[in-house]
Amino acid sequence: MAMKWWGWGQPDKGYALDRKPLFWPFLERRLGPALGEAAPVMELAAIALPPSRLSAEHHKALSAIVGADGVTTDHAERVHHSYGKSYRDLVRIRRGHVPHAPDAVVYPRSHDEVQAVLDCAREAGWRVIPFGGGTSVVGGVEVPPGQVGVFVTLDMARMDRVVAIDRESGTATIQAGVFGPALEEQLGREGYTLGHFPQSFEFSTLGGWIATRSAGQQSSKYGKIEEMVVGLRLATPKGTFDVRPIPAQATGPSLKELVVGSEGLLGVITEATVKVHRVPAVRDYRGYLMPSFEVGIRAMRDLLRQELRPATVRLSDRQETELFFKMREEPGSPVEAFVQQAGKWVLTRGGSIDFEGRCLLLVGFEGEASAVVSQWEVARPILKRHDGLSLGASIGRSWFRSRFDLPYLRDTLLDRGVMVDTLETATEWANLHDLYQAVDGALKEAIAKNGVAPFVMCHVSHVYHDGASLYFTFAGRQTPGRELEQWAEAKRAATDCLVRNGGALSHHHAIGLDHAPWMREYVGSIGIEALAALKEAFDPTGYMNPGKLLGPSAQASTPKGV
Amino acid sequence: MAMKWWGWGQPDKGYALDRKPLFWPFLERRLGPALGEAAPVMELAAIALPPSRLSAEHHKALSAIVGADGVTTDHAERVHHSYGKSYRDLVRIRRGHVPHAPDAVVYPRSHDEVQAVLDCAREAGWRVIPFGGGTSVVGGVEVPPGQVGVFVTLDMARMDRVVAIDRESGTATIQAGVFGPALEEQLGREGYTLGHFPQSFEFSTLGGWIATRSAGQQSSKYGKIEEMVVGLRLATPKGTFDVRPIPAQATGPSLKELVVGSEGLLGVITEATVKVHRVPAVRDYRGYLMPSFEVGIRAMRDLLRQELRPATVRLSDRQETELFFKMREEPGSPVEAFVQQAGKWVLTRGGSIDFEGRCLLLVGFEGEASAVVSQWEVARPILKRHDGLSLGASIGRSWFRSRFDLPYLRDTLLDRGVMVDTLETATEWANLHDLYQAVDGALKEAIAKNGVAPFVMCHVSHVYHDGASLYFTFAGRQTPGRELEQWAEAKRAATDCLVRNGGALSHHHAIGLDHAPWMREYVGSIGIEALAALKEAFDPTGYMNPGKLLGPSAQASTPKGV
Repeated sequence: MAMKWWGWGQPDKGYALDRKPLFWPFLERRLGPALGEAAPVMELAAIALPPSRLSAEHHKALSAIVGADGVTTDHAERVHHSYGKSYRDLVRIRRGHVPHAPDAVVYPRSHDEVQAVLDCAREAGWRVIPFGGGTSVVGGVEVPPGQVGVFVTLDMARMDRVVAIDRESGTATIQAGVFGPALEEQLGREGYTLGHFPQSFEFSTLGGWIATRSAGQQSSKYGKIEEMVVGLRLATPKGTFDVRPIPAQATGPSLKELVVGSEGLLGVITEATVKVHRVPAVRDYRGYLMPSFEVGIRAMRDLLRQELRPATVRLSDRQETELFFKMREEPGSPVEAFVQQAGKWVLTRGGSIDFEGRCLLLVGFEGEASAVVSQWEVARPILKRHDGLSLGASIGRSWFRSRFDLPYLRDTLLDRGVMVDTLETATEWANLHDLYQAVDGALKEAIAKNGVAPFVMCHVSHVYHDGASLYFTFAGRQTPGRELEQWAEAKRAATDCLVRNGGALSHHHAIGLDHAPWMREYVGSIGIEALAALKEAFDPTGYMNPGKLLGPSAQASTPKGV
Repeated sequence: MAMKWWGWGQPDKGYALDRKPLFWPFLERRLGPALGEAAPVMELAAIALPPSRLSAEHHKALSAIVGADGVTTDHAERVHHSYGKSYRDLVRIRRGHVPHAPDAVVYPRSHDEVQAVLDCAREAGWRVIPFGGGTSVVGGVEVPPGQVGVFVTLDMARMDRVVAIDRESGTATIQAGVFGPALEEQLGREGYTLGHFPQSFEFSTLGGWIATRSAGQQSSKYGKIEEMVVGLRLATPKGTFDVRPIPAQATGPSLKELVVGSEGLLGVITEATVKVHRVPAVRDYRGYLMPSFEVGIRAMRDLLRQELRPATVRLSDRQETELFFKMREEPGSPVEAFVQQAGKWVLTRGGSIDFEGRCLLLVGFEGEASAVVSQWEVARPILKRHDGLSLGASIGRSWFRSRFDLPYLRDTLLDRGVMVDTLETATEWANLHDLYQAVDGALKEAIAKNGVAPFVMCHVSHVYHDGASLYFTFAGRQTPGRELEQWAEAKRAATDCLVRNGGALSHHHAIGLDHAPWMREYVGSIGIEALAALKEAFDPTGYMNPGKLLGPSAQASTPKGV
């Protein structure tokens, strides 16, 4: 149970607004006053759960597989495993609204135990929800409404070992339940890194990354998770399925690519073989101020057109840039320093600095010192050509240091009656700015419809040869009593907009329950039929993570044959 | 009809042995004398085909879709479309053994025409074989034995246009029937290249590359075809299926990766959006002599561990190296020059040159001049550290110039009573040398069992972070009357060996009819069921390219519902 049951991250850690004196006053001015009392977090013990439907006999059967301490129907455990960490989840859990908790949580220690639990579930007619770190923001780990029967959540946290490192092949075989820090610690002892650092890194697992097609902040160098995975072991309703670790092949459709992104519908990923890299000798992240979002996008694309492999390229729009500046800590901090530097630069040119227009671009290279230096030599003239103003390395270091902190802010804002969520997409370079404007406009319009001032910001990151992702943050005052409807309206407007304007339905958050209603429009009916056929092939009775990805329509509400 | 009906390539071009005076005597010494008269190529007109079963009415229906000149039951056309270009195909076609020719060949001009032909086929109960350049070496385009009913081959050659180039996104949308040279010519006019140059380049098509998961000789820089494709249009038995061109996504299993490698079983690829690159300013290919195959492999791997992106890295084993040297043309040629250079180097060290032990390594960089120079600066010390002897750029140029010529040699050798074929696999670096030795041994043993001297050689190419491919050429004197059995024995021994020793069943030749018997062992029964379910989802009546990939067992011998 790594995280707070009611919010993000370590129980003793939060997002301290008092150390950022400019931030909350700025945001509060934008959002306007609270429209009511913010809902406080309920006491854990006061949350009423439906009683567990796991029989004593079945409890015993599970204990025989995973050990007595590996199966629990404990109240706190069931609450903790009820939801992921989306805005919707946090609103529901804060008010203790948990009508569909899992009936039991099971902690297997090995592939064979996972397989045995699945076999047991099939016979008993249970539904099974695989659970990594529980950081899903799309409803990927919850019991969907309208389902009857026993739900067992399979928490993979005990399967947390790096099994083997193959130095010659540059790969490692790793159990799927390992969390980011433990994974990097075990690899790091041998001088290796996976290079996968999503914002959820501290609280998410290898298996979760693979099941959801996760992207780390250094994806431009190390790839998205699907590019890291070379082999897989899956426990499925039909038995063990191994995808051989082979570098490349011409043996029909890629079975690896069927499993990556399968969101627990085909089985449980228990182990993966992934590419690993030497821990970089140097990490050099630097900030630039670009004249506009559009120019910044062109500069990013031009960087990618060279033989460069930056680890991170991340461009904030003017709104996010402004907020970033307001988030600086005390005067004299690194952020303060670069603001001064920027001011100096402007003075020497006889202009005045306009943060409203300028956009912050972060560029980071990692690797051998010489390779980093030579890549900067190519990158600098490109950024200069696009009128980029160098802010130096301190801003890069400060971003890097705090790169996993932002999710904590959500709880702090919820305490203040603010709706805040993020959504992400991807599209081709030629469409990037148009899609940005369309989604930005759709979000603002939908939020404003509820009579609250919208706050929307965005950054471009995860750059590819042909395009990049857009990551939006949207906020507004909560309208009391309509917190979820208000959020759903904004989410729906944005998702409609991005799907109809050439964007990915998701770039790295996955589908889960929340995006499933758009899947048919997104992949077409033939695509849905293909995915449903796959589901049927692996899981004919339909008991693996029901309702996710394909939505309720593609699956029976009770397992077949039960 | 781009190629000779009975062999490889342009009708007026062959592999001239007389310009390589050392080559044939050397090979003949190794192979021993011919064991009988080599079978001559039969007259085209003398080949007896089963009569076309396409009714006049159906001929008319097809003409209404593709135009009168777009449908033919002509004898030469049917012969030409009967087989691909494998050793098995050439042996059969030379002796005029064509018991199962397609009943008609249809040349659609657009996606809608392809879709209309498929709809027509479904109603009429025909089977359909999509046909690109017909260069399959695994039986990918033939009418399989044991099938009854009408077979229509869909030749995509008229769909040969680059539809659009998106300079901003670095992509191009291209019709699937375009041949390599026409594709590069159209892109080249705008300053772009796809960068996909398989050995079949001159006679194969974009759609064929995608359907078979092809790899080009510059795959280490530009990727295998699956890494080039970003979007797809498919005509399927259920209608048009579009895979959106999106750089990356987290929207379930990859639908793109389902279509790439589908070998015509799911539908017909009519158009693709692919990444394109600026035509490289510089191509710099150089040769090195490495002390041994094992050391050469380590050097390749070390090159890949740096921030380098060579276009080509290719290491011949001692046998292939020796043959390469024997293939030199007249004295005074570039090859002669580097042999002299090598000799000089050996003399200065007081040793004697031992080509038996040394292995030829080709390394090529492409791109901006400065990037090529700086990559060589990193590469050179690595090659030197592994005792690589530089042979300079002339050998690289000579390899580059003749890189599409070798398939012609097969016909020349067939004329001389030689069985010769190639096969390829891929595995992780740690397993590469072991797999090489195992397959090399299996081939030699199987060939020798027929009482003929085996000639087996191999190169490593298509390098990846975690491994590389192995490409074997095997030869021996044909045993008259058992030419196909003798070949099948060697092929079977090698394939059993590579599948059981961690190798890919194919790295870039695909599955077709020839590798299908190994698919269940290779991907497991769950994998087969998943692929069969996909097939069923796209093509419920089973009329698309029957017998390929999944073998006859996974499909009815006549379309269902007919």
